[in-house]
Amino acid sequence: MDVREIRIILYGVGAMGSLIAKALLEKEGIEIVAAVDIGKPLGKDLGEAIGLDRKLGLEVMEPERVLSRIEADLVVHATASYLRITYPQLRACIESGLNIVSTCEELAYPYYKYPGLSMELDGLAKKHCVTVLGSGINPGYLMDTLPIFMTGLCQSVQSIRVVRMMDSSKRRIPYQAKIGTGLSPEEFQRRIEEKAITGHVGLVESVAMIAAALGWRLTNIRELPPEPIIAHREIPTPYVVVKPGQVAGLKSVAKGFMDNEEVITLEFISYAGAEEEYDGVFIKGIQNVEMKILGGVHGDLGTVGVIINSIPKVLNAPPGLLTMKDLPIPSATPKDLRLCLRGDWAEAKGRAFKA
Amino acid sequence: MDVREIRIILYGVGAMGSLIAKALLEKEGIEIVAAVDIGKPLGKDLGEAIGLDRKLGLEVMEPERVLSRIEADLVVHATASYLRITYPQLRACIESGLNIVSTCEELAYPYYKYPGLSMELDGLAKKHCVTVLGSGINPGYLMDTLPIFMTGLCQSVQSIRVVRMMDSSKRRIPYQAKIGTGLSPEEFQRRIEEKAITGHVGLVESVAMIAAALGWRLTNIRELPPEPIIAHREIPTPYVVVKPGQVAGLKSVAKGFMDNEEVITLEFISYAGAEEEYDGVFIKGIQNVEMKILGGVHGDLGTVGVIINSIPKVLNAPPGLLTMKDLPIPSATPKDLRLCLRGDWAEAKGRAFKA
Repeated sequence: MDVREIRIILYGVGAMGSLIAKALLEKEGIEIVAAVDIGKPLGKDLGEAIGLDRKLGLEVMEPERVLSRIEADLVVHATASYLRITYPQLRACIESGLNIVSTCEELAYPYYKYPGLSMELDGLAKKHCVTVLGSGINPGYLMDTLPIFMTGLCQSVQSIRVVRMMDSSKRRIPYQAKIGTGLSPEEFQRRIEEKAITGHVGLVESVAMIAAALGWRLTNIRELPPEPIIAHREIPTPYVVVKPGQVAGLKSVAKGFMDNEEVITLEFISYAGAEEEYDGVFIKGIQNVEMKILGGVHGDLGTVGVIINSIPKVLNAPPGLLTMKDLPIPSATPKDLRLCLRGDWAEAKGRAFKA
Repeated sequence: MDVREIRIILYGVGAMGSLIAKALLEKEGIEIVAAVDIGKPLGKDLGEAIGLDRKLGLEVMEPERVLSRIEADLVVHATASYLRITYPQLRACIESGLNIVSTCEELAYPYYKYPGLSMELDGLAKKHCVTVLGSGINPGYLMDTLPIFMTGLCQSVQSIRVVRMMDSSKRRIPYQAKIGTGLSPEEFQRRIEEKAITGHVGLVESVAMIAAALGWRLTNIRELPPEPIIAHREIPTPYVVVKPGQVAGLKSVAKGFMDNEEVITLEFISYAGAEEEYDGVFIKGIQNVEMKILGGVHGDLGTVGVIINSIPKVLNAPPGLLTMKDLPIPSATPKDLRLCLRGDWAEAKGRAFKA
């Protein structure tokens, strides 16, 4: 293939960044030209940092040593959930002329919580002719892009309910700890108040994105504090044995209202021992739609998929701060990511196609 | 709202065109400025032609009396399944500077069967700065756009199977007749050979569209002749009582191969008395995905939804012959379709926004 490889900088090689890096190494048509971080992986070889038993010959460096010094097409950004933290990082990438695909949850649809910052990022991205996207399995796919997609067959929509039902005991141990597995209800409550347990980040963004896609002007978006789900029997997990009366997991809910009517309901439910795992979309309208992904979607694998599959879409897209609803439908990438590159914007952006 | 209404010409007011027209009358921000047909509805008032009990003050006219004489933004085209028949109609619309959303099954992905014609239509559309889309519930959504969308969470895809399982006894009577309900197996076979029964039109297009979206180069697409599904018990339907041994419906299958491996399988199954109606997508890959629309999708209602929801997407899109995989994700339209219009191309195309 005479199109040169897509040059990628990894920004953040923590848990998620490492999974993405490993999956990228399975693809062709891309080259990881640098890896940056500000935490523990700094100074290590990338292979070591992401848990491979071989070196990759790339030292994980500080961002300042890489951005605007190493020529690249795109940054895969996986550092933090909150835009307050990621904003300066994203800004630096954009100013270095780099397209971005980020796992930052709040970036999946930042226009609701941060209209000013969003417009600023959008303007900056256009000025530097790059495209910026926040995505991942959730937010970014399951509880926003998917329900939006499903409304596409409806003549009209009255209300949308989305349910993500997960058995947390099958997930990463740090994740099980994060949602309070095995705590007493009192301790769970204390951690909620201290914001040590935050529930799922991104529900508000997903509600706002659905509304924007449907042309709905919501009067209110409400996120309820995460509720504990209490075990009624002993539930063994790889992390801890949950005793009856202890916390098995949590439920996070966000709702969107038009006038006083609840028109969007997102329920994120994750606990050890959940019997039926699924991702469901339930639409009331003409016509009603009831869809389920049976067995649910594995979150980490899904985020890796969505992020990697977004790379060519972002390179093909017009400049600016986009969200998943603005891009062509998601689709899996073939082994060689260059097969998904197309003319138009990828060419205008210059570097993606230059040999 | 100070943006003027979207001016729509209906091309074809048969069964499907009438359903679309009735649903369009429920929307705001659009005006049906003309209706054309070459068959029975010619000369009738549109209200009468589509089965309303009131007149709409629009006479159904011959295409030549309308195209390029009446200023409009877009044609909703619903005449025939085969591009051979619709091609001159589409061409006349494009040359009159009209964007098109068509139910023509073969137009949903014409690049495989008709690469030459497709390039011609694409060039013509670009020359006249209009966008042309073939869509509908199937092809256009359930067995192509939806499975493509679902692969978006996969790191890699090995194979895709899509099943549309319908209880035909719940559908329109002409549809039940069309699939051979109540025939003897011999009569069914005869009609297959005479091409009086064709099975579902669009499976090959859907296979080709999935492959194109995934960057797969198929070595072969094979469509099997429709098979009868034989009743094992008496099945009463609004059309006929199917006796044991008679045909209850049919199964159409198309397959896509890479080398000798079957990587795409589409199964369209429609018969009276089907127990579980559903639309399913089953992906083998990293990760596997199993999704079902429970109860299935009502085809006619779905086509109306997909077609109407495509109108603003087509007006917003760059010129050319596009397919559903090239547009932003499908989404329902609000009551006023103008709320979905955006700058960029809709402006460049001029008329969509001119007061």
